[in-house]
Amino acid sequence: MAQLTNPTRIGLAGLAVMGQNLALNIAEKGFPISVYNRSASKVDETVERAKQEGNLPVYGYHDPEAFVKSIQKPRVIIMLVKAGAPVDQTIKTLSAYLEKGDCIIDGGNEWYENTERREKEVADLGLLYLGMGVSGGEEGARNGPSLMPGGSFEAFKYIEDILLKVAAQVPDSGPCVTYVGKGGSGNFVKMVHNGIEYGDMQLIAEAYDVLKSVGKLSNEELQSVFSEWNRGELLSFLIEITADIFGIKDDKGNGYLVDKVLDKTGMKGTGKWTVQQAAELSVAAPTIEASLDARFLSGLKEERVEAAKVFKSGGFSDVLTDQSVDKKQLIDDVRKALYAAKICSYAQGMNLIRAKSIEKGWDLKLGELARIWKGGCIIRAIFLDRIKQAYDRNPNLANLLVDPEFAKEIIDRQSAWRRVVCLAINSGVSTPGMSASLAYFDTYRRERLPANLVQAQRDYFGAHTYERVDIEGSYHTEWFKLAKQSRI
Amino acid sequence: MAQLTNPTRIGLAGLAVMGQNLALNIAEKGFPISVYNRSASKVDETVERAKQEGNLPVYGYHDPEAFVKSIQKPRVIIMLVKAGAPVDQTIKTLSAYLEKGDCIIDGGNEWYENTERREKEVADLGLLYLGMGVSGGEEGARNGPSLMPGGSFEAFKYIEDILLKVAAQVPDSGPCVTYVGKGGSGNFVKMVHNGIEYGDMQLIAEAYDVLKSVGKLSNEELQSVFSEWNRGELLSFLIEITADIFGIKDDKGNGYLVDKVLDKTGMKGTGKWTVQQAAELSVAAPTIEASLDARFLSGLKEERVEAAKVFKSGGFSDVLTDQSVDKKQLIDDVRKALYAAKICSYAQGMNLIRAKSIEKGWDLKLGELARIWKGGCIIRAIFLDRIKQAYDRNPNLANLLVDPEFAKEIIDRQSAWRRVVCLAINSGVSTPGMSASLAYFDTYRRERLPANLVQAQRDYFGAHTYERVDIEGSYHTEWFKLAKQSRI
Repeated sequence: MAQLTNPTRIGLAGLAVMGQNLALNIAEKGFPISVYNRSASKVDETVERAKQEGNLPVYGYHDPEAFVKSIQKPRVIIMLVKAGAPVDQTIKTLSAYLEKGDCIIDGGNEWYENTERREKEVADLGLLYLGMGVSGGEEGARNGPSLMPGGSFEAFKYIEDILLKVAAQVPDSGPCVTYVGKGGSGNFVKMVHNGIEYGDMQLIAEAYDVLKSVGKLSNEELQSVFSEWNRGELLSFLIEITADIFGIKDDKGNGYLVDKVLDKTGMKGTGKWTVQQAAELSVAAPTIEASLDARFLSGLKEERVEAAKVFKSGGFSDVLTDQSVDKKQLIDDVRKALYAAKICSYAQGMNLIRAKSIEKGWDLKLGELARIWKGGCIIRAIFLDRIKQAYDRNPNLANLLVDPEFAKEIIDRQSAWRRVVCLAINSGVSTPGMSASLAYFDTYRRERLPANLVQAQRDYFGAHTYERVDIEGSYHTEWFKLAKQSRI
Repeated sequence: MAQLTNPTRIGLAGLAVMGQNLALNIAEKGFPISVYNRSASKVDETVERAKQEGNLPVYGYHDPEAFVKSIQKPRVIIMLVKAGAPVDQTIKTLSAYLEKGDCIIDGGNEWYENTERREKEVADLGLLYLGMGVSGGEEGARNGPSLMPGGSFEAFKYIEDILLKVAAQVPDSGPCVTYVGKGGSGNFVKMVHNGIEYGDMQLIAEAYDVLKSVGKLSNEELQSVFSEWNRGELLSFLIEITADIFGIKDDKGNGYLVDKVLDKTGMKGTGKWTVQQAAELSVAAPTIEASLDARFLSGLKEERVEAAKVFKSGGFSDVLTDQSVDKKQLIDDVRKALYAAKICSYAQGMNLIRAKSIEKGWDLKLGELARIWKGGCIIRAIFLDRIKQAYDRNPNLANLLVDPEFAKEIIDRQSAWRRVVCLAINSGVSTPGMSASLAYFDTYRRERLPANLVQAQRDYFGAHTYERVDIEGSYHTEWFKLAKQSRI
């Protein structure tokens, strides 16, 4: 192995594609890096790639002790291994050789409480700890991810110079990294980022479905529509790759590849956590829930095929009616519906982060989070700039929906949004995300909800009491006794 | 205190209203019962009530030791105390005097894992344990609740004769109790029962909102509509009490009480757990999620008042348009929409129970659960008979939606259902539960979903691979490289 007389600046353990790419990115920015992996072949592969991609200063080690000792003190090591037990195992291996004041960073999609547990455990050894969300997939890791480090501020300061260079750079907005906050806040924020990503992807899928199934757009037309959308308010990585996807021909047969892809969506757990945390924190997150449910239902392919048969015999076809639609108007409407629904989805995600921040005392800055998502990560979009501006205008904004700019944007789009959801409903094409977003909006903007009835029911059968609109206090009524007198 | 020479048949600890009522119910069925509470006044109150309600054989104890020793062996004690730490405290107090083979029953809304932990803990002392869901509120506890005991089958057998008499009795269907299954299954099933209850209450609230806000029905008309509905397919406790509620005048002012009740709904945790478990088990439960979210949003009264102001200045009123509607048609449509949405909600709840049953090896019988919910509990309804029949026809039914009878009912109601949701959307009146149910139905019955796009996106940015519709296997495509050639 190539050995180094001078210590390297930083180490990275865990050399699957994400780890390799992040190591190469760090080296390319001028920071000599030591790399280690439990299976040695990945180490050699990474060193070989470093050579081929421009003789980057990457130094490989097969032995964990030699790896740790090759790094300058205080040592900083980024782990990019599978969340859960592999992280604990890697910490155990490395900490045997680390010394007081050294720092371990977990760059995986880890559950934030695991990070908080580990932060305490390694503190007993005198080590510092960071849980750092890394978004942007393989490409982002190599060329500039969005980085969400949380935990020890001291440890963040050790490597701030590295992170500022390694992160995606956005003109007029700076590097996509910031010190998120204490404890597991970096992982928590990354988790919600992924939940928002679920929402974005589901809303795009619904737009696709309506345009294709109701509007009868071809893949060529869809490619052109999404390319056009990517030049306006929807400009974003996910819209861009969607346009790309529609242009790709199947290399194993005729036609387009997207039509050959099975309609089953996988998932890895962060969307589930987001939904569970929203429930835990009493934050309504219907758009994100709808996108998680859509993934669950997509997985029931065989059941859906059977259900389609049952309802076909009852007169249901895949799309209920061939309504004649004005294509141009439909495309315009769907764009507006997608944008308005997206505002609702981000409002939910941001409020979830704030609720957790209050619970944990993390003091998270929502506008700053929107800023570091502007580049590098999967949800990067011009739209995030508007969110940052909204929180700049009012850091205590109760909900993105009531920011004056967003409110205006929704008002301008609400008729189109309602048209699209109703068209879909009448076509039998489900738009769970767009309709859940619309219900969220119409619920949130409503001074008086029918929740009075629900509370009256609860008081009726469970004596849970209720408040009144006109007089302070908590009341209970013997509904049943009174009702017996007035039943009709 | 009245003391007894002969031992009592059973004991009950925890004498809030639910506990008092259940003790009186048991005594009334001919089983002498010992009762105990940490604060003595509740004991005396219960004994006094027993005297007044017909000299029922209820024996009060201020001392836990005397309480325990007054019960015949093997002793069975039902606890009705607050879930969590109070349950552990009560177990500690009682188990000091209990002997090998005795049994403790938790009748509260406890998290099922706590029951499983306690079952193991008391097993070390030689005690048996049951976690028993009790539904029906105060009235049910007194006159016949639905009982969902899970845990030790041996313990269930000790008191089967008592439970069979104490539970609600439904003609042609028997007592509303069955041995649910092992471990925490009784608590889990009660939790999902409550999640379904959230769904039912939300759907009724939406029906109310559409009829009142769009159809302009008065409380008198609403009372009459719900009374009428309670004579048909919707016949149920919740519809009955809803009709009652609309008839009750405000005793503190003019008009009807329901209009004075603040539109903020409280909650106690079982709905939240249901949503979290659905996510954990990959079961789509959008109707139940929507009802939980509606409660969260109802709680943001002050924010909603502010949001309403923001959008009023943008031309939004509480109800967007004064559409002229045919009242008779609307009432009929809303009834059908409510019924169809209800099927979706129960399908979700039942599938959640099944998923857990498979995970834990509980072997739960869904049809039998529908049977014991037919009386006593909050969701009791004629509708549950149809669910029982569906599982009798096919115990392995994948989803209630595809049962031939339910499928037919949905087909008959789908046009009305779509009309109601679209009318609400165009009126700006949110129907999150009805629209989430409709999206669930339209997703589940669809052979081909747009999930192919989402999976293509995941493969594009994360190399998550995809399956194909035509060839077996797992595939990965270099979308980005191919796209560069075809970008427009």
